[in-house]
Amino acid sequence: MHFQLTKEFLEELRIAAQAEDKAWIDEHIVVLHFADIAELLDELTNEQAKFVYFHLDEDIQADVLMELEEDVRDRFLKSLSSEEIAVQLENLDSDDAADILGDLSNKEIQEVISFMTDEEAAEDIVDLLNYHEDSAGGMMQKEFIQARLDWPVDRCLVELRRQAEEVEKVYTIYVVDELNKLVGVLSLKSLLFSTPKTLVSDLYKSKNVISVKTTDSDESVARVMEKYNLVAIPVVDFQNKLVGRITIDDVVDLIKEEADKDFQLASGLSEKVDSNASVFRMSRARLPWLLIGMIGGTFSAQVISTFELSIGKIPALAFFIPLITAMGGNVGVQSSAIVVQSLAKGNQFNTITSKLLKETLIGLLNGIICSLCILGIASAFSDLRLGITVSVALFVVIVFAAVMGSMIPLIMNKYKIDPALATGPFVTTLNDVLGLFIYFSVGMLLFDL
Amino acid sequence: MHFQLTKEFLEELRIAAQAEDKAWIDEHIVVLHFADIAELLDELTNEQAKFVYFHLDEDIQADVLMELEEDVRDRFLKSLSSEEIAVQLENLDSDDAADILGDLSNKEIQEVISFMTDEEAAEDIVDLLNYHEDSAGGMMQKEFIQARLDWPVDRCLVELRRQAEEVEKVYTIYVVDELNKLVGVLSLKSLLFSTPKTLVSDLYKSKNVISVKTTDSDESVARVMEKYNLVAIPVVDFQNKLVGRITIDDVVDLIKEEADKDFQLASGLSEKVDSNASVFRMSRARLPWLLIGMIGGTFSAQVISTFELSIGKIPALAFFIPLITAMGGNVGVQSSAIVVQSLAKGNQFNTITSKLLKETLIGLLNGIICSLCILGIASAFSDLRLGITVSVALFVVIVFAAVMGSMIPLIMNKYKIDPALATGPFVTTLNDVLGLFIYFSVGMLLFDL
Repeated sequence: MHFQLTKEFLEELRIAAQAEDKAWIDEHIVVLHFADIAELLDELTNEQAKFVYFHLDEDIQADVLMELEEDVRDRFLKSLSSEEIAVQLENLDSDDAADILGDLSNKEIQEVISFMTDEEAAEDIVDLLNYHEDSAGGMMQKEFIQARLDWPVDRCLVELRRQAEEVEKVYTIYVVDELNKLVGVLSLKSLLFSTPKTLVSDLYKSKNVISVKTTDSDESVARVMEKYNLVAIPVVDFQNKLVGRITIDDVVDLIKEEADKDFQLASGLSEKVDSNASVFRMSRARLPWLLIGMIGGTFSAQVISTFELSIGKIPALAFFIPLITAMGGNVGVQSSAIVVQSLAKGNQFNTITSKLLKETLIGLLNGIICSLCILGIASAFSDLRLGITVSVALFVVIVFAAVMGSMIPLIMNKYKIDPALATGPFVTTLNDVLGLFIYFSVGMLLFDL
Repeated sequence: MHFQLTKEFLEELRIAAQAEDKAWIDEHIVVLHFADIAELLDELTNEQAKFVYFHLDEDIQADVLMELEEDVRDRFLKSLSSEEIAVQLENLDSDDAADILGDLSNKEIQEVISFMTDEEAAEDIVDLLNYHEDSAGGMMQKEFIQARLDWPVDRCLVELRRQAEEVEKVYTIYVVDELNKLVGVLSLKSLLFSTPKTLVSDLYKSKNVISVKTTDSDESVARVMEKYNLVAIPVVDFQNKLVGRITIDDVVDLIKEEADKDFQLASGLSEKVDSNASVFRMSRARLPWLLIGMIGGTFSAQVISTFELSIGKIPALAFFIPLITAMGGNVGVQSSAIVVQSLAKGNQFNTITSKLLKETLIGLLNGIICSLCILGIASAFSDLRLGITVSVALFVVIVFAAVMGSMIPLIMNKYKIDPALATGPFVTTLNDVLGLFIYFSVGMLLFDL
């Protein structure tokens, strides 16, 4: 029951857009859902996209604009004049309009705003630009429906009809007192099923009304909305005055972005890039991690070089270098991933000591199991002494990596550094250097070098 | 504007629950939001939690139950009789009730169902149990509001009032024809602002109504709702008959779970575990990855052992083993992460060849930069020949890892294996083995061994 994009259709669209075939676009594109149109425009050249876009109904243009991929939208907006941008902004929700303006220079912002004819909309947008991008204020929109505590239902309905034209989706009506302070919420359902003269104050719910402050971080907004299963949340200022609302679609986008970012960090990508970015940008996103990895590798080389003589005598010692480093890395990443996730969830009751103790226990258990396995393998490979060397070193490395892997993100978190960084080469390098040192030291002891 | 849990408060609650202090619980707990109560119960013993739970208002109990952490809820339900469970189920949304029943044995399900007094609710739940857990049918609830095409607004309002008692949150009213087939949607807003005799057929929106089929996968439901910015989506059967709806809160949970799963897979954790799991369960979740890592390490040992004589003559060759394997691993994980993410987003237009070409180009660029860096470092470390060996081997390893890292998830995806698995030790092991082989082969050539 939704549009399936095919290569053939896209090809036809390209031809039609190129030929400026209005009839074809009317028949095949204008009828589609705005999200599908955006998906199609993402695949066109800017000139083609522009032609199709300005052929759409004006009230759907804004929706399409917000659904375009970010780089496509940036390119598209760059090709518009300030006046054309101003027209587009007037059809957007205030939060989206502010987001778009936020990417422009101060001079351009002023120019665009001066072209806007809707005074009130312009004021709302300018106001939103004051808030930090990653705060509740930066996420909120000015479009919401509010009712005064002392209104009767019929007065509400008249006002709502007026306000509702601005608000695309009505979720909840916010109830304010005469000072505009948020005092509760009113469901559209309860309004719908009440007599005209009932007062809002008799219908509204004032208990456990969840709101966020303009200065709250976007991540805490997401956490609150998720925890309380909300589809929209009111935003208040420091005087508890209602100033905006945040809807779930923005939070879903945020959750996805955060997850992508964490995944990329855990995979050693230092900038937010998607698979459409240029080769140079993608290369740059990966280099920092690789260079840190090279520094780590050089440290490891330094450690091994101090055992050069031993290796010269017993070259078999070199065989299990990759195993020792790989296992240290694996265990470290596993431990830190668990800790990072539980920190991200805002787990507050497990104290640091109990976490470390638990990781140590898991490390001991897995260390014993892995050591026993490798004792057999490595002994069969060469001789018992090598087996014991690898086995003992592996045990120490696993326990050590488990402890470090959980300690480092905890420490980073304490000093307000994103602990997701800890799952990267930092933990790995430390493990490698120490693991190799342990391995060769045990080897020297056992082989009497 | 929302409850902040403190250790002191939790301590007081523990004491009150232990002492069965009803007055304290009335004053401090019953007034809280259900999500906060659930968070508190998560921290109590089962006996304490049970006491508080059954002291809550009955209509809030179900909400609290669904917000408990999964293992806490399982433990809680296990301590209830079938009859007690049946009472709880009647206050739950049908999808939640079916989820809870789904965890029980067939015998227990039958017993619980037989204790349910609400025939209709029981039927709905039994019906939902037929659908696969990970399908739209398994996610949907039977509570939704529908209106017939031929109803006038006032008839709608009467019916809605009746239906709305069952439906906690009204988002959209689904419009069906006389055969119960979904034909469109009606916003509560449009109903609110129309005259009593207007027909639904004059108000409803039939264009671009997005729905999913019962058999669609949960991931595709999430993708559709996200793409079209929906807060609820209707579910239809193969005859396009309306059978249920899915709300955004379930999708938010799903998105979070998927993200956690991907992150855990990328971090080498093979089962879904949270940081509260027992040491044994956490140990088991990590062992498979570690054992695969050990097998990989053994393969690497095998490769190195074939160069035992060379190492004996030039032990310095062993110095850069960790660097070669670490860099191969890093590059491989980076490449596969990008591919896995773009596959997860359902990117369909970039063909496999263009992706491989791009990754190869990035690999070449980063390979050249890293090789030049390491040429200087390794030469300074020992001599120019070692520098050239490491440099050449590193270049080949980086390019190779970039290509393999992107190819393996693409191939896995083609054969319907979760490509997120590819970021694990599979790619790493392959890179290690081949990287070491290249490294030592180049070394033998240059050192004339």
